[in-house]
Amino acid sequence: MSYKKIALLLLICFTTACSFAQTLDEDGEIKYIKKMYSNILTESPAHDWLHYLCKQVGGRLGGSPEYAAAVSYTTHMLDTLGCDTVWTQAVEVPYWRRGAIEKAKIINSNYVGTLDLAVTALGFSAGTGALGITGAVVEVQNFEELEALGKDKIKGKIVFYNRPMEITRLNTFHAYGAAVNQRTAGPRKAAELGAIGTIVRSMTVKQDNVPHSGVTSFKNETPIPAVGIGLQDADLLSALLKKESNVNVNIQLSCKHMGNRIAQTVIGEITGSEKPDEIILVGGHLDSWDLGEGAHDDGAGCVQAMEVLHVFKRMGIRPKHTLRCVLFANEENGLFGATEYAKQAKLKGEKHLAAIESDAGGHVPSGFRMDAAANIAKESYNQVKNWRTIFASLGLWDIQTGGSAADISRLKDQGTVLFGYRPDSQRYFDFHHSANDVFENVHKRELLLGGGAMAALVYLIDKYGVR
Amino acid sequence: MSYKKIALLLLICFTTACSFAQTLDEDGEIKYIKKMYSNILTESPAHDWLHYLCKQVGGRLGGSPEYAAAVSYTTHMLDTLGCDTVWTQAVEVPYWRRGAIEKAKIINSNYVGTLDLAVTALGFSAGTGALGITGAVVEVQNFEELEALGKDKIKGKIVFYNRPMEITRLNTFHAYGAAVNQRTAGPRKAAELGAIGTIVRSMTVKQDNVPHSGVTSFKNETPIPAVGIGLQDADLLSALLKKESNVNVNIQLSCKHMGNRIAQTVIGEITGSEKPDEIILVGGHLDSWDLGEGAHDDGAGCVQAMEVLHVFKRMGIRPKHTLRCVLFANEENGLFGATEYAKQAKLKGEKHLAAIESDAGGHVPSGFRMDAAANIAKESYNQVKNWRTIFASLGLWDIQTGGSAADISRLKDQGTVLFGYRPDSQRYFDFHHSANDVFENVHKRELLLGGGAMAALVYLIDKYGVR
Repeated sequence: MSYKKIALLLLICFTTACSFAQTLDEDGEIKYIKKMYSNILTESPAHDWLHYLCKQVGGRLGGSPEYAAAVSYTTHMLDTLGCDTVWTQAVEVPYWRRGAIEKAKIINSNYVGTLDLAVTALGFSAGTGALGITGAVVEVQNFEELEALGKDKIKGKIVFYNRPMEITRLNTFHAYGAAVNQRTAGPRKAAELGAIGTIVRSMTVKQDNVPHSGVTSFKNETPIPAVGIGLQDADLLSALLKKESNVNVNIQLSCKHMGNRIAQTVIGEITGSEKPDEIILVGGHLDSWDLGEGAHDDGAGCVQAMEVLHVFKRMGIRPKHTLRCVLFANEENGLFGATEYAKQAKLKGEKHLAAIESDAGGHVPSGFRMDAAANIAKESYNQVKNWRTIFASLGLWDIQTGGSAADISRLKDQGTVLFGYRPDSQRYFDFHHSANDVFENVHKRELLLGGGAMAALVYLIDKYGVR
Repeated sequence: MSYKKIALLLLICFTTACSFAQTLDEDGEIKYIKKMYSNILTESPAHDWLHYLCKQVGGRLGGSPEYAAAVSYTTHMLDTLGCDTVWTQAVEVPYWRRGAIEKAKIINSNYVGTLDLAVTALGFSAGTGALGITGAVVEVQNFEELEALGKDKIKGKIVFYNRPMEITRLNTFHAYGAAVNQRTAGPRKAAELGAIGTIVRSMTVKQDNVPHSGVTSFKNETPIPAVGIGLQDADLLSALLKKESNVNVNIQLSCKHMGNRIAQTVIGEITGSEKPDEIILVGGHLDSWDLGEGAHDDGAGCVQAMEVLHVFKRMGIRPKHTLRCVLFANEENGLFGATEYAKQAKLKGEKHLAAIESDAGGHVPSGFRMDAAANIAKESYNQVKNWRTIFASLGLWDIQTGGSAADISRLKDQGTVLFGYRPDSQRYFDFHHSANDVFENVHKRELLLGGGAMAALVYLIDKYGVR
């Protein structure tokens, strides 16, 4: 055989192999994935898992006893659902505990008597002691206004951040993104100027009076008391400040930073049949805020990720790549679980082909957001675009680049293609970080369809690759 | 000028005129329509209108006093929102009234004592008298099974239709379509074979025990008692029938056909500035089942249709075509309002360019279904496809041909392009025709976004035409 003939033969083989690997049987895959959906809608225990996480475990801040109970339960469930390996990865996390007392009242307005305000401590808020703190309230909309007032006018005061989430944003996550720095950085910036406390308008677009919590961060500053306030009381307080020059508020909080604790990220995997060293990760974060039951945030994401493995087992699909479920510790209070996970993955030289996280609630599926390092972003997006007819047949119309999810974002620089599962956003902030984030507010079918969406994506990546 | 030159000039003018009319400023329209959405999300009274319809009026079957109250309220609202003309169109409708008594119990099984079943009368069911009817229950899944049993085995019995809505259908309306003939035609077919009563598994995919109503039709047969039964009790009854050869049930109903009554379809319009004789219709049906408050079905659709006119008024948009809001009488009990409306439109030679109805609930928007007579279907669909980028920017991804909505379907043979507004379907049958169809189960933002979707479509049709 001449070199030319050999070259030609090699070319043919190569071309055949490539086209074989990439031939997409669209109709066949739609049919098969709909079978997965049917299996999930009829057989999945994910809704029951969520019931346990919400009702038997409850809210589970990183480092809390409840978090340990969540680790115990999910480790056991991953084991019994048939993972080849289940383990936990320890990480030190800060443990802040809400106290029984969280109160605020207006004490010197022209109102007759006192007026209670619906508040809840933000994560890492300082406690106040039994008598609480009392100070005059200064309302600002943003940091520019705060800084314009300066130390003279802020020192000794309680800063009230009252910029609303914009209800005109169609995607409520965009409204959240535009408002949340008041909560994450507001108390710190107020403390820098000598404020003795902070009140932050709750991050919600629902016009009720339920206060929402969430993390706030202090760097080198000594933490000050910081609370979220219900929207109705925020409006009331703001209206009062327009009428009266001096409105004093007393805040009492018994929350406390308890120091660091050990918490575990929970991991279970099905070993790949062809490429066991290449990992497809599905995950959510196991910790949650403590006011509700962490139902949408992120119990839903955890059980959807577990369901992906379970439907593969139930249907006898042996993945070619290793399929790994990761339930991250401590997303809410600092992302330490995700950081440790990425660090360990790098140390061990693990290759994560793709990572899919569900952390935007258990509502009706709409699609995915994709993110990847610049050198692979285009080819991976092009590959996923090949599947758009399949996704559309499942109601997953909205496939876009840009953003994914917090925990998996730590894997981006390891060459992992990242996917944030996206359900509809309209209801999410009705519940988020509040006492309303409970099991009853998760719709069973919507939850299961989300598991289906993630399973479909994993199935396609495992079969066709993602680049 | 030569004929050739004149012809060329005419061609240029014609081409310019055509392209002028059809040039779509996509970015500009997205920007403008998002302004409409912002206006709706901040200013719309639609949620308050729905509150009145649900809480001050309540369930409103065609011909009932409650229906008359709904006519009174919406006529007044259309007037005050600034319609140029508001009127009502009378139509004779059958008036069936639910009674205070609707009960069923198992009376002779091996259970100790009696066992109550959760049932509710279907529309046009016969009443039973004080002692009720008692008969042995025969379970069937479909009409084939019924007919195979035949008169000998059906006569004197109570037929129990127990075919579930398939929970594996991703679109719950498809599951409904595949199951609902048990309710609409089941009692009639059972009566033909001599059955004395009918029990029908409720049309829902939610695994609770809430019975759902809905219309059933008798043609020449004398109506027999017919009830919907909650899913848990349907399963229980079915399990019992597998164990025991003879299960008797007693049904007591005090419902009654009250004869015909006059009801009104409510109509309000803004006269078109350029083509007043060409009508763009937006609508819903004003009647509802009586068990709940007709919140999703179809209070939501009515207030969304009213909102389309209101946002045009609020924003000072003068439509080129006449924009008409039609709240149809009697969709639930026979579609007499829609039939009369189409008949009158034809008699008067009215030209309905397009008709858009919302009658699939107030949930998060997903898109539209289109329908039109064969000779115009393709060109109208092609026109709407031009707007798909605009629609996608609003989350309206799902634009398809086939089907629209019941009331407007009567206008199809008059050359009207029909649009059924489509929200997500996952939750709809949790509430549909049951006591759970109440105001509290409608999400304000989702309701308003539906109004926005309809307003966007009307705006584009008015500006660019629909063919």
